[in-house]
Amino acid sequence: MEQTYHVGVVGSGTCTEDLYALAREIGYQIGKHGWTLICGGLGGIMEGASRGCFEAGGITVGLLPGSHKEHANPYIRIAIPTGLGEGRNLLVVRASDILVAISGGHGTLSEIALALKTGKTVVGIKSFENIEGVVRASTPEEVLQILKDNRTA
Amino acid sequence: MEQTYHVGVVGSGTCTEDLYALAREIGYQIGKHGWTLICGGLGGIMEGASRGCFEAGGITVGLLPGSHKEHANPYIRIAIPTGLGEGRNLLVVRASDILVAISGGHGTLSEIALALKTGKTVVGIKSFENIEGVVRASTPEEVLQILKDNRTA
Amino acid sequence: MEQTYHVGVVGSGTCTEDLYALAREIGYQIGKHGWTLICGGLGGIMEGASRGCFEAGGITVGLLPGSHKEHANPYIRIAIPTGLGEGRNLLVVRASDILVAISGGHGTLSEIALALKTGKTVVGIKSFENIEGVVRASTPEEVLQILKDNRTA
Amino acid sequence: MEQTYHVGVVGSGTCTEDLYALAREIGYQIGKHGWTLICGGLGGIMEGASRGCFEAGGITVGLLPGSHKEHANPYIRIAIPTGLGEGRNLLVVRASDILVAISGGHGTLSEIALALKTGKTVVGIKSFENIEGVVRASTPEEVLQILKDNRTA
Repeated sequence: MEQTYHVGVVGSGTCTEDLYALAREIGYQIGKHGWTLICGGLGGIMEGASRGCFEAGGITVGLLPGSHKEHANPYIRIAIPTGLGEGRNLLVVRASDILVAISGGHGTLSEIALALKTGKTVVGIKSFENIEGVVRASTPEEVLQILKDNRTA
Repeated sequence: MEQTYHVGVVGSGTCTEDLYALAREIGYQIGKHGWTLICGGLGGIMEGASRGCFEAGGITVGLLPGSHKEHANPYIRIAIPTGLGEGRNLLVVRASDILVAISGGHGTLSEIALALKTGKTVVGIKSFENIEGVVRASTPEEVLQILKDNRTA
Repeated sequence: MEQTYHVGVVGSGTCTEDLYALAREIGYQIGKHGWTLICGGLGGIMEGASRGCFEAGGITVGLLPGSHKEHANPYIRIAIPTGLGEGRNLLVVRASDILVAISGGHGTLSEIALALKTGKTVVGIKSFENIEGVVRASTPEEVLQILKDNRTA
Repeated sequence: MEQTYHVGVVGSGTCTEDLYALAREIGYQIGKHGWTLICGGLGGIMEGASRGCFEAGGITVGLLPGSHKEHANPYIRIAIPTGLGEGRNLLVVRASDILVAISGGHGTLSEIALALKTGKTVVGIKSFENIEGVVRASTPEEVLQILKDNRTA
């Protein structure tokens, strides 16, 4: 069998309604294309993306910082409680073929940096535009196009 | 939504045909019941269990020691390359609600020990019968019954 | 410079006075020989070994499961809070050139298994004599001799 | 006993002579004050800082990405081979009470982000001045003053 394309979505655990809607739209496109969503499994951006992907019938993987899978948001199908705390950020990066960063704080920045360090493409939308190496996107459509281009690369 | 029951299967990366068939039968039952298979994603017992679960239409998760998901066996649907080496053994344990150990060497023993340390049930078949705390089973049917009993507990 | 010999001592976080004294004696010999003690940094066997090594003027390293170095026992000079929970067990193994297991439960067993899996010598005293591959010792003198022999190997 | 102050120094594994000299000077001050140097144990900035600290008689701890302590730079007294790859970056952060970032690339950025995420002070010299939360310093003297102030805080 062929493995699915793993798209990681990273961002803060709490966010505005607008950012949640943006994450949900991107997650929806991920699920609709039959790709797998990789994320940290909690709230905010992670929940928005999981919800969208779930609503499109896609598989959602949540790599949780704690040891209890009950802490995953309700749209995670495969919850992996790592018990590694912020150490799970690296696992989100390693499990992803490409990373989409939506806004975010220092945790998101650590994921962007680890992805760039390990040679992975990072698409940023409303997120850390000052970091060299991040591919900027302004709309979900642009994000989607970059995901597709990277897939076929 | 309700999360699925995560059954971890651990054992050596190379094994006899008989043990492979045993792992495949147990994996098949896991998939048939709609549970998720968690394993280390490589060959031997891991592949046998993945193959059975995959053939039954179940979801198979492989937590790989290396950084490349291409190293997963062909029956893994969700490959998570951890890059943690033997550190992934702990993740297999944490991601599982219950563990089935089939034969195995020192790596398997480390997983059994970590599972018992973290309070999880370990079912052993042809595996480390001398370790206190391991629940012994002699047939796939016995393993299945223990998995069911633990599920409803 | 030449790096020091790293001797890991593993065992339970709570123990009898006799086992504590045994760990302290072994720790003392480690420090007296100018070797570095690697351990999990907490109580029981870990504290006994740390105390002995500290009393002999040796360096004691504690790889803690939590995120706060204040949780180290008072004889740890270099506390490394890993925040990895049981994941620190693997680090104790990787940081050690050789492992001494004193009695112990499932956590200790996981360390023994990981050490054997990664090709390291494990000396067991009053500890898991039924595990194939563990080198048995009955007295601190025997442990010391094995440590010396392995050092020059 | 009282534990020592753990100062982490992060930066690239290769660097210019000027940056090496800067790292060495900062490392020297760390050792001279009886503090412990925490770093990634390899070359470049890590080696410069280790060398300075070592020359001042201080303790140097290297948390290595690989599994072999022989890969540590020659000024590391306590080499901890983690085998976690970039996962060791988080350990450098957790093991440090405060972090000094000297220049650096994406790996360093991940350490800065993880430190800020976990609430630790990060002093930056010639390093990522555009990241919110980093305390800027221009000279080794300024770095030293911040290290002292944070120590007594």
